[in-house]
Amino acid sequence: MAGESNTARVSDCVVLASVPDGPLSAEHFALQSEEVPDPGPGEVLVRVQALTIGAGQRAGLQGSASYAGSPETGVVMRGTGAGVVEASNAEGISVGDTVVGWTGWRRRAVLAADELRVADSALDPALHLGVLGTNGLTAYFGLLDVGRPEAGETVVVSAAAGSVGHIAGQIAKAQGCRVVGVAGSDEKCSLLVDEIGFDVAINRHSPDFRAEFRAATPDRINVYFDNTGGEILGSALFRMATFGRIVCCGAVSAYDTANPDPSPRGIPGLLVNNQVRMQGFIVFSYADRYDEARTQMREWIDAGSLVPRHVTYDGLDAAGGAFVDLLGGRTVGTTIVRLGD
Amino acid sequence: MAGESNTARVSDCVVLASVPDGPLSAEHFALQSEEVPDPGPGEVLVRVQALTIGAGQRAGLQGSASYAGSPETGVVMRGTGAGVVEASNAEGISVGDTVVGWTGWRRRAVLAADELRVADSALDPALHLGVLGTNGLTAYFGLLDVGRPEAGETVVVSAAAGSVGHIAGQIAKAQGCRVVGVAGSDEKCSLLVDEIGFDVAINRHSPDFRAEFRAATPDRINVYFDNTGGEILGSALFRMATFGRIVCCGAVSAYDTANPDPSPRGIPGLLVNNQVRMQGFIVFSYADRYDEARTQMREWIDAGSLVPRHVTYDGLDAAGGAFVDLLGGRTVGTTIVRLGD
Repeated sequence: MAGESNTARVSDCVVLASVPDGPLSAEHFALQSEEVPDPGPGEVLVRVQALTIGAGQRAGLQGSASYAGSPETGVVMRGTGAGVVEASNAEGISVGDTVVGWTGWRRRAVLAADELRVADSALDPALHLGVLGTNGLTAYFGLLDVGRPEAGETVVVSAAAGSVGHIAGQIAKAQGCRVVGVAGSDEKCSLLVDEIGFDVAINRHSPDFRAEFRAATPDRINVYFDNTGGEILGSALFRMATFGRIVCCGAVSAYDTANPDPSPRGIPGLLVNNQVRMQGFIVFSYADRYDEARTQMREWIDAGSLVPRHVTYDGLDAAGGAFVDLLGGRTVGTTIVRLGD
Repeated sequence: MAGESNTARVSDCVVLASVPDGPLSAEHFALQSEEVPDPGPGEVLVRVQALTIGAGQRAGLQGSASYAGSPETGVVMRGTGAGVVEASNAEGISVGDTVVGWTGWRRRAVLAADELRVADSALDPALHLGVLGTNGLTAYFGLLDVGRPEAGETVVVSAAAGSVGHIAGQIAKAQGCRVVGVAGSDEKCSLLVDEIGFDVAINRHSPDFRAEFRAATPDRINVYFDNTGGEILGSALFRMATFGRIVCCGAVSAYDTANPDPSPRGIPGLLVNNQVRMQGFIVFSYADRYDEARTQMREWIDAGSLVPRHVTYDGLDAAGGAFVDLLGGRTVGTTIVRLGD
């Protein structure tokens, strides 16, 4: 085995302390120490430098199972991290390599080589976790492969300031679409228009939301990229153009509660009348096309047409609070927790 | 102008006498006489021999507008008929030709040539109105183009004994699928399995419907052809296989009532978790492919793999009652009203 080798190596991690019934708070998490095993054959030891936190993880903490799995207390929070290899028993992976994988919320992780990818060490790990990670890939395949927007069409994105939404909106602009964002505050809306390039953005908490939504979609909606479900999905269903597409990416409105919003009205009637396609997807089904997507997105980033944003927290003990902020709608872009070099 | 020419020609028709608030009954219709004009340039006079009645027409009688249009009392009921040309001012259409078009519920209709199609006079007009008409085309494009079933997959059809459903099920069998029907009575279920070739059929009024539905779909559902919406759609959503497709063809459950069923639970969450595509369509969007579909279906009919069924009523004054029977679930196959030769 190459690299350092400590027996009884101890490192920090964050566990789920209790299963939330309602809104999540920082006290549902606890910082602990854990013993880190030596990497076995085909495994590497990673010093995690950054974690990303996504709203989709909230589904895994719900009392009932979802695609993200069932919740368990006392185990380390699952999640994706990027870091540097400290020791390697895996062919083709060297000490010092930057890798990205399912580390969980911990400073040191042992991962099997087939569960991680080696990434460009020259880039900020936040990029590997954001635009080049699951968030960016979700935006890419959801918008382009499921939504299939064409130049001149109107694309609406909910949770538009979120990790997926702010990238989906920019990709839609790159396709020549008119892009309308829905976000949770006036500040986010200003930022979407002024700094991220959305044509219009609407505050979903506005008392005139429905009227503003209608006014923002005078030609109706060709592609609705739905990150929320609930009321915004309901409003969009009534504004879809003929042959419109609804990309069902997630349902934030249903994650942080034991009583999810009811389904929107008018199903299936509105789908029939307007010949609308409504399609759920999970990004992992596109694994064999990740390289294509990453290559394209790096080109857009280099050309300046895609500007990924992060909100950064420092230290493992900030991770729970970061998750709470995310679900509370207080973040813009990808949520990154930096654990140090 | 070729053919007979009567001025002040008087003929029978059926009008909507009142707009139903709830269930439709025969008294909402009235048989009347109307004066039939001479056909103008580019028009033909048709002696209607048979009408078809579809559940989709019910939407047009609802108090609010739908894709089928807004209701009006005192005007002749709209609908599709087939008949023989009695007089023609249209190039390429001759007296004696069989034509199919939007005749309305009347014995004699004047139609513009570009609103009708000339059909094979050797066939029973009921075939032109059923399997080779809108019902059959709806089954064909909905199942094959929207649903895209593959051999070995499980296809579920609701309103399976209906004009569209009984054809969709047979086309699915022709694709090598396992086909499960949902219908409104034990008699219909027996008929679907014993005579129409469904693998299983379930009575939606069974007290054990949900358990029977689960038992009938042990490998879950790859394609659900939804003619009903409501509770059956709700049950299907919970049984969809990964990458399943829901063909939203219509919503009978919402037609014959002023209080449609609520939307099914679990949208969008179930679509995301199982990566399901749910797509509404209207057959008229496939007009440029009708010939392809008719050619294929005539081949299946000639080969005996597609056996269309009709329920027949005699005389224009039976049309209202036929419609009531259809919506009440008392018919199997395509509803045909024969008006004489």
